[in-house]
Amino acid sequence: MIHIHGGNVYQYEHTADFSANINFRGMPQQVRDAALSAVDRSVHYPEPGCQSLKKTLAVREGVPEEMILCGNGAAEVMFSLAFAFRPRRALLAQPCFFEYEQALSAVGCEINHWMLEAKEEFRVGSELAGQITEDTDLVILGNPNNPTGQLIETSVLEAIAEKCAKTGCMLVLDESFLDFLSDADAARTSSGVALMKRNLPLCLFVIKSFTKMYAMPGLRFGYGICGDRDLLLRMQGLMQPWNVSLPAQMAAEAAAQEITYAKETARQTARNREWMREQMQALGYTVFPSCTNYLLFIGAADLKEYCVQRGYLIRDCSNFRGLAREAGHEGAGYYRICVRSQEENEALLAVLAERASRRLP
Amino acid sequence: MIHIHGGNVYQYEHTADFSANINFRGMPQQVRDAALSAVDRSVHYPEPGCQSLKKTLAVREGVPEEMILCGNGAAEVMFSLAFAFRPRRALLAQPCFFEYEQALSAVGCEINHWMLEAKEEFRVGSELAGQITEDTDLVILGNPNNPTGQLIETSVLEAIAEKCAKTGCMLVLDESFLDFLSDADAARTSSGVALMKRNLPLCLFVIKSFTKMYAMPGLRFGYGICGDRDLLLRMQGLMQPWNVSLPAQMAAEAAAQEITYAKETARQTARNREWMREQMQALGYTVFPSCTNYLLFIGAADLKEYCVQRGYLIRDCSNFRGLAREAGHEGAGYYRICVRSQEENEALLAVLAERASRRLP
Repeated sequence: MIHIHGGNVYQYEHTADFSANINFRGMPQQVRDAALSAVDRSVHYPEPGCQSLKKTLAVREGVPEEMILCGNGAAEVMFSLAFAFRPRRALLAQPCFFEYEQALSAVGCEINHWMLEAKEEFRVGSELAGQITEDTDLVILGNPNNPTGQLIETSVLEAIAEKCAKTGCMLVLDESFLDFLSDADAARTSSGVALMKRNLPLCLFVIKSFTKMYAMPGLRFGYGICGDRDLLLRMQGLMQPWNVSLPAQMAAEAAAQEITYAKETARQTARNREWMREQMQALGYTVFPSCTNYLLFIGAADLKEYCVQRGYLIRDCSNFRGLAREAGHEGAGYYRICVRSQEENEALLAVLAERASRRLP
Repeated sequence: MIHIHGGNVYQYEHTADFSANINFRGMPQQVRDAALSAVDRSVHYPEPGCQSLKKTLAVREGVPEEMILCGNGAAEVMFSLAFAFRPRRALLAQPCFFEYEQALSAVGCEINHWMLEAKEEFRVGSELAGQITEDTDLVILGNPNNPTGQLIETSVLEAIAEKCAKTGCMLVLDESFLDFLSDADAARTSSGVALMKRNLPLCLFVIKSFTKMYAMPGLRFGYGICGDRDLLLRMQGLMQPWNVSLPAQMAAEAAAQEITYAKETARQTARNREWMREQMQALGYTVFPSCTNYLLFIGAADLKEYCVQRGYLIRDCSNFRGLAREAGHEGAGYYRICVRSQEENEALLAVLAERASRRLP
């Protein structure tokens, strides 16, 4: 059975897509131009191992290029990590991105699912560190987490990292949405790369994605950063040398320069998100706080179909662990929407308002 | 250590690339247009699992779509097959494409390397069937084979397939270059799909590539065909749902229609290849017979550097098993060149003639 993700615009044609968490400002012009010119150069193979691109990313991250591994999307990095590391026991904080579980299960890993609580707004607390034992080989955390939109406070992250260092557990931080944080939110957490630079005896693996911020999910590009060179070489050995297509390589090379675009996106996203959240709350929806470009909320049982019929695709979250519909709540469920432009958000809001006025969940 | 392949135009800038076996006629216009329009649609994810593309390929191959699995290049199909099938012992006919060995080694498979003989022009004979025992889990054969350019005669292929069926061995046929065969050569062999359609009790896996024929190695696209639906589902479970980028999906959709382009390419390639082979032989080079778009030959020890200095990149084959330089032959080595346009071939030939006149190997 194939897991149903958001962003499947092929199944729902002619809808505005709020189900995938993509930068509403679209692909930067330079990124688009790079991908277009790459098509004409695609009679050649991509550069093996993304050697040039790695140099650019190393400068961006302030780490040696030997610490970087490029992937056909962040998801490929996750899978090759699972295959190379082969953890026997792992810890996930649920709900989280489904591919973590799929990649771990593919190598027969036993997973301890730590359930985050709706009443705590799905915040990751330092009690998670208590779940990491000598038997835990690997922990994966989204920072910020998908679909909850919550970041991990610096003190909590440090407590978890210290526990991992103590027990010899690999800590994987998925930072696919970290660049969407406002400056204020960014000050509340720490990037994995910053942790690495403190030279703690850490086994830390950071996953980054260009797919979301640079609106290039169709091109696919993500990368991993890790100080364990042997692990990266093992991962590379499990992949073909041309895993990143030429359009993806050249688009990523251009995207790596788009620092201002990312900053401006984070600013606009925060403004649009807070407006949308207030409006939805005013309509009676329970909307969880978010620091990134999507909002998790509770809506009526038929809300997805209701929106699709009116031309808006939203993400039904009932296939995330911990977000299944519960009996006795009139079938109300969790949904996730991407924060888009003010105009697009207003249009979706009108539909949400219409449905809310009929019957609140 | 990264294996050195052909086609690395990044390391050898400003050279004409004869080292990668890509259709010299370039990317068909419709394929290019599809990839370009895909870039503008790449703010969306690719279609999960390539559902639409699978339907097109199923029609092309005359098999149910459930028998098809799409990959980020044929190399990804090979790796995911190794991961899902996990053979303990495999048989390879050397020299062959390096990725077979890399993929098998990645899952700890023990490999029996059957050495093809230069004096038999590296032909695969029915004695290979004798190497398949009850202990052999998997055999991979290129048909035609890279870098030798040899096809497997129908009677030999049948003998091997029957032995595999008898011992329960999986037979993998890499047909990445099969569409380059002239009609006469195609009549001498059998495609794996034709074997499948005979309903033998076969465990057969066919690998196809669009990279070479449709000159889209930078975009990456290959696929597998297999009757074992459970195996394909296991393979899919080891891959992200968006493994094939949107430019690759849309380019492949267009390429699947380019039957005439492929036929005309095969015709022109055969003509150019035979001309080139005759000319090289007249210069004193040992050139092996080929049925596809590349030629394996023996040249002087420094031939690659000699050609690169004059602006032509050729493939040094000394890192293929069985093609290492031997002592006592004045360092003469094996090289592979792609068959390109008449004009390009003539230009390379002039360089080869110059070097041959200085000292023949």
